[in-house]
Amino acid sequence: MKTKNLPIGVFDSGVGGLTVLDALLKALPRERFVYFGDTARVPYGNKSPAVVLQYSREIARYLLHASPSIDDLETGRRIKMLIVACNTASALAAPRLQKELPIPIIGVVEAGAAQAARLAPRGTIAVIATKSTIASSIYSEYLKRLAPKAKILTQACPLFVPLVEEGWVDHPVTEQVARIYLENILKQKPDVLILGCTHYPILQAAIARAIPAKTKVVDSSGAVARQVQEKLRKLKIAQSIRPLTPRAGFYVTDDPEGFRRAAKIFLRRALPGPVKLVRL
Amino acid sequence: MKTKNLPIGVFDSGVGGLTVLDALLKALPRERFVYFGDTARVPYGNKSPAVVLQYSREIARYLLHASPSIDDLETGRRIKMLIVACNTASALAAPRLQKELPIPIIGVVEAGAAQAARLAPRGTIAVIATKSTIASSIYSEYLKRLAPKAKILTQACPLFVPLVEEGWVDHPVTEQVARIYLENILKQKPDVLILGCTHYPILQAAIARAIPAKTKVVDSSGAVARQVQEKLRKLKIAQSIRPLTPRAGFYVTDDPEGFRRAAKIFLRRALPGPVKLVRL
Repeated sequence: MKTKNLPIGVFDSGVGGLTVLDALLKALPRERFVYFGDTARVPYGNKSPAVVLQYSREIARYLLHASPSIDDLETGRRIKMLIVACNTASALAAPRLQKELPIPIIGVVEAGAAQAARLAPRGTIAVIATKSTIASSIYSEYLKRLAPKAKILTQACPLFVPLVEEGWVDHPVTEQVARIYLENILKQKPDVLILGCTHYPILQAAIARAIPAKTKVVDSSGAVARQVQEKLRKLKIAQSIRPLTPRAGFYVTDDPEGFRRAAKIFLRRALPGPVKLVRL
Repeated sequence: MKTKNLPIGVFDSGVGGLTVLDALLKALPRERFVYFGDTARVPYGNKSPAVVLQYSREIARYLLHASPSIDDLETGRRIKMLIVACNTASALAAPRLQKELPIPIIGVVEAGAAQAARLAPRGTIAVIATKSTIASSIYSEYLKRLAPKAKILTQACPLFVPLVEEGWVDHPVTEQVARIYLENILKQKPDVLILGCTHYPILQAAIARAIPAKTKVVDSSGAVARQVQEKLRKLKIAQSIRPLTPRAGFYVTDDPEGFRRAAKIFLRRALPGPVKLVRL
């Protein structure tokens, strides 16, 4: 089997990356995907860089060498590209994984930062994300490189993920929390607001009500899908025939049933393939 | 060294069990403690029973055989008793650990349920806890055995832990969330409210404002301390001389610095001993 026939790997700390998979399935209708959700060790957002790197490595190697039932006979590889859908892992592990692994790695952070830089190269760009993504300064680093004249604001929003997981998506408490978190950055009238966590697109309505209409919202999942499309074309490894179903396979480290239920929130439909429990 | 000179092990998924350690240090001034916080894999509250049991076993065995620098020369044991300070682990793993290990195991769930049963043997007892503690029905099972005539109400409060961790302890959002969570159980006018999660005592003020003055609050940490005291006396393994300092040693699986900072919230003072990073 040739590289272009291989699936694309997508990994996340849990279910949040399904918002990224959703965008990928829509933007790349010929590609197949294997998704890994580390549901036993979720969340990554409050873990140290060393632990996030260790977990990310284990998962990347699993997807590259062990996971699906197809591979590239010449290289022995089982995915042709890896999407790091978890912002924390993308911030703390993607650059290192790119040095260690022989396939292209695309992180949500780089993709989101690149789109924001195109939208407001000299404007004000605000980033909201988990505590460790903000503490890593990774969005600021990418943005400083991609839009050196832009003004960058950041804000950690640690309660957004538990609010999504509680299902309080369109809820007065969530709106109140959003107003509190966004108060300081809104004083600076940002041109762009980057949703720097895969859970945040689910709160897009509550967030939109808290910000001015002229502030453009960058949802990294859409940005990633565009970057993947471009990279596949450039490397000539895009799939050219319509793939067999199922279009995706799923690996989780805990609770496949809970994962299947959560898919309805994050993927906005049932899972398009089987879920398998894996102990790393 | 004899059994009575050994320290008592305390384990939790993270920092929350420090509220239990706080009560133990006060109630048992002659005892020494080793505390294990599984900060790399916190929280347990949304993990499956199989995973919680696996993690709890690893930690119990570590404390029993590998952790401190002292042991019982006859048995090779390094702790004389194990306190499961995490409600989820207490619910899902403590009974099994008691069967597998040669030392007494005391879980916060059993201790809290016993105290509530004494306070309202025929009354209405409400339990608030994490999603998986409530789903396990473990409080209801203990209460049905200890107070078969009591009426039992339960409510999961998944946002309380992230609110404590965000530091929104005395905050209008926390009060609003408490009112929403407690609304249904308060309609039944409970005599006792069990705080079934180690983080909840930190929110005691906000919770107290949301409930009637006549509802008694059972904080499991105090209940555990009393049960430990009794058990040590009964088994004749209480320490009789004043121990050397430090009175406690700490093991964490991630971020010792973050753990040290969190101690100020949960232990209400600096850690009374060294913290060591352990990879299980």
